[in-house]
Order: sequence, then structure tokens, then C-alpha cells
Amino acid sequence: MQLNHKELAGIPIFLGLSEKDLTEISRTTRFNLRHHKKGGTIVEEGDACTSLVSVIDGWVETDTYSDNRAYHLEELVQATQILEPDKLFGLSLHYHSRCRAYTTCESVSISKEELTQIFERYMIVRLNYLNLICRRTQLLERQPWQPKNTELTDRIAAFIKQRSTYPTGRKILHIKMAQLASELNVSRLDVSNALSAMNEADKIIQRRGMIEVPALQLL
Amino acid sequence: MQLNHKELAGIPIFLGLSEKDLTEISRTTRFNLRHHKKGGTIVEEGDACTSLVSVIDGWVETDTYSDNRAYHLEELVQATQILEPDKLFGLSLHYHSRCRAYTTCESVSISKEELTQIFERYMIVRLNYLNLICRRTQLLERQPWQPKNTELTDRIAAFIKQRSTYPTGRKILHIKMAQLASELNVSRLDVSNALSAMNEADKIIQRRGMIEVPALQLL
Repeated sequence: MQLNHKELAGIPIFLGLSEKDLTEISRTTRFNLRHHKKGGTIVEEGDACTSLVSVIDGWVETDTYSDNRAYHLEELVQATQILEPDKLFGLSLHYHSRCRAYTTCESVSISKEELTQIFERYMIVRLNYLNLICRRTQLLERQPWQPKNTELTDRIAAFIKQRSTYPTGRKILHIKMAQLASELNVSRLDVSNALSAMNEADKIIQRRGMIEVPALQLL
Repeated sequence: MQLNHKELAGIPIFLGLSEKDLTEISRTTRFNLRHHKKGGTIVEEGDACTSLVSVIDGWVETDTYSDNRAYHLEELVQATQILEPDKLFGLSLHYHSRCRAYTTCESVSISKEELTQIFERYMIVRLNYLNLICRRTQLLERQPWQPKNTELTDRIAAFIKQRSTYPTGRKILHIKMAQLASELNVSRLDVSNALSAMNEADKIIQRRGMIEVPALQLL
């Protein structure tokens, strides 16, 4: 399946390439273009990551579980998104999050082998990819060093932010109040009061076993 | 200054290159080889990262400060080490940690420009570098999802582990007890008791304003 140069230009690792280079890439690379029905799985948690998958149209829902499966975070995000670009190299070559089509979606995947060949030919793509990964490393690295807030409402917000891959948009944290209390080392009653205050301030929508954040950037 | 192929072979991004390639790299690349006296600064926190610095001989001490400067972590590590390889690309092109020579040290730096040229010519170096960065991203990404222990001694250990760049060796956390209590959201007395217990179990050496961990892997 072939993609035209305009479709390719929207994928972050191809930013800055000339129309000529994009046309050349679209002509010589085997892309796997997939159409996803609403609710369909795009990548599954734990699946081997052998290709770089980019969702180029639609909205996706990602779901990430804690190691003990006691809670999980759902994030809603609009295309274009490259799914876990850091899983193609390194030690852990498996997806950490499940990604599903929230609306009808289109995705494009490039095998690791083909990507390696593109890296060989285009310095810009190599640099875009390195910048993407290093940016994520730098963000993650800074997190533990940020000051801890003493307000519980702020600490709940930080808990969600720290686990979010995408810095903005809607998030739903599926967690029991007792679990959140244990994670934050406070009492269940304190968590309950803090969530009620956040609910009244329209920062979150509180539901049974769920904390919905309409817009993380406003939390 | 030139390096021979054996010295180059010890730097992680050159792993797996043939002797012929290493000799070729040593012949064509401008390396900046520096000798550091005991106590001398190798890189300073906040300095622009414009080259890839590897300490190839000796022991170094790195020092990382919290954003509010309320505490800092000292790590002791033996060469060979590449210093913050993720700071050469991405958003934040400045060192996060200071690195000093703990013993007499030798370091080698390669400018970003020269490194980019090596990437151009050697796929293995490109892959080694990508693997290095992705591995670090993956480790950092998993941390928030790990189960929180309810024992305070374990939470103090996790606090130090989460902030350590190197997973083993000696660490000294410079922190006031009241600050650690506030970070962990417990009372100062609880922290004091937990530290005493860890001290008695020979897991840490407790000193005024300092927690020394002789070996992080045993904590």
C-alpha cells in the first residue's frame, strides 16, 4: 500500500523532509496502511513491537495498567500519534499500553527493517526520531525531582500527570479510593474529601471506581 | 588527539564494531581527550551539552539536585560511563547533573557534529545509541507503575532508587529529615525511626543531613 507525500509529511519523524524526499520514500517503502473500526484494537499491551505504528486519522484511546493490575489509566488522544516509539529499540520490545480506535481510525506501520533503511538514507528522519525519544527521556527524568505539593488535591493531580503519556486531553483513572489512598499514603477519607473538592471545582468528574479528568492541562 | 581502537572499543556506543572500523573511526574523528585531577569538574550542571562525553578511566561522582534545591543525590560510579547521552538531542540540551572526578579520570568527548557523521557511516553506532536511550526511557517509564510499598523503609529505598541514574553502587542522599518526611508525606518521627532501623540493619549509614547507601543493589 502506498501513501502520498502529504500523508507522510504529517508523521512527526518525517517533518522537515522535502516533497522530493517524501515522494521518494512513499515510492520505495512498504507501508502497511490499516483501517480500524470504532472500538477495534490497534496495538495490544504486551505485543511485540516490530514496526513503528502511527495513527494518522481519528481519535484513539490508550489504556495503561499498573504492574499489579490494581489500577489503570485511559487516555484519549487525536491523530497524528506515533505509538510508543521507544519500544522499537532498547530492552523492552513490547507495548506497555493497549491502543484502541475511539472513532474510526487509519494507521500506518513501517517495519523496523524498513525504518532502519530510511534512517540510513535520511539524516533528518534519524534526527527527528532521536529528538522524539530524547525529549521523552528528559521529561520522564525530571519528574521525580519536581517539588511534592502538600495539598492532597495537588498530589492526586500529580499522580495522574505522572502516568500520562500525552500531556493534555481527557483521562480516566480507573482506581478504587482505598487503592489511591494507599498509593498516596493517606487515609481513604482524606482521598474521598479531596476528590469531592475537585469534583465541586469541576476539575474532575467523580464516578464509582473512576476519576475522569476532562482536560489534564486544566487540572 | 587520537585514541587507539582498543580504547574506543570500551565505549558502549562503539560496541560490536570491527577492529577495522574502530581504527578508521580513530583515524578520522577528532576526539577531545582530557585528563582530570581528583576533584576536578568534568561536566557542570546546567552546562550546554554540545558533545558526547565518556569517562573512560577512573571513578566519578555525580550530583543531582531537586528542582527546589531542597535535596541532592550523590552517586559514585566507575568508568566507562557516557554522561547523560540523552542531552545531545531533544528539548533540554543541558546537563542535569554535575560530574566530578572522584579519582584521577580520563574522559573523551566527541562533538555532536562528529557524532552525527559517525551515525551517518556506521549503522551499529546508530543502533547502539538508540538502544541506550530507549533503554533509559523504558526504565523511567515503568517506575510510576510499580507497586508502592506500605513499609516506610521500603518507600525510602524506592525514593533513592527512583532518583538514581546508575542502578548499583554507593549513593549519598543529602536531605534533612523534615524534607524527606514532607516528600514521603509522613511525620518526621516516622522517618527518623525508619532510618534508625535501616541504619541498624546496615542497609544505610546515617549521618547528619545525609543518608549513605553503601550499595544500592543491596538496599
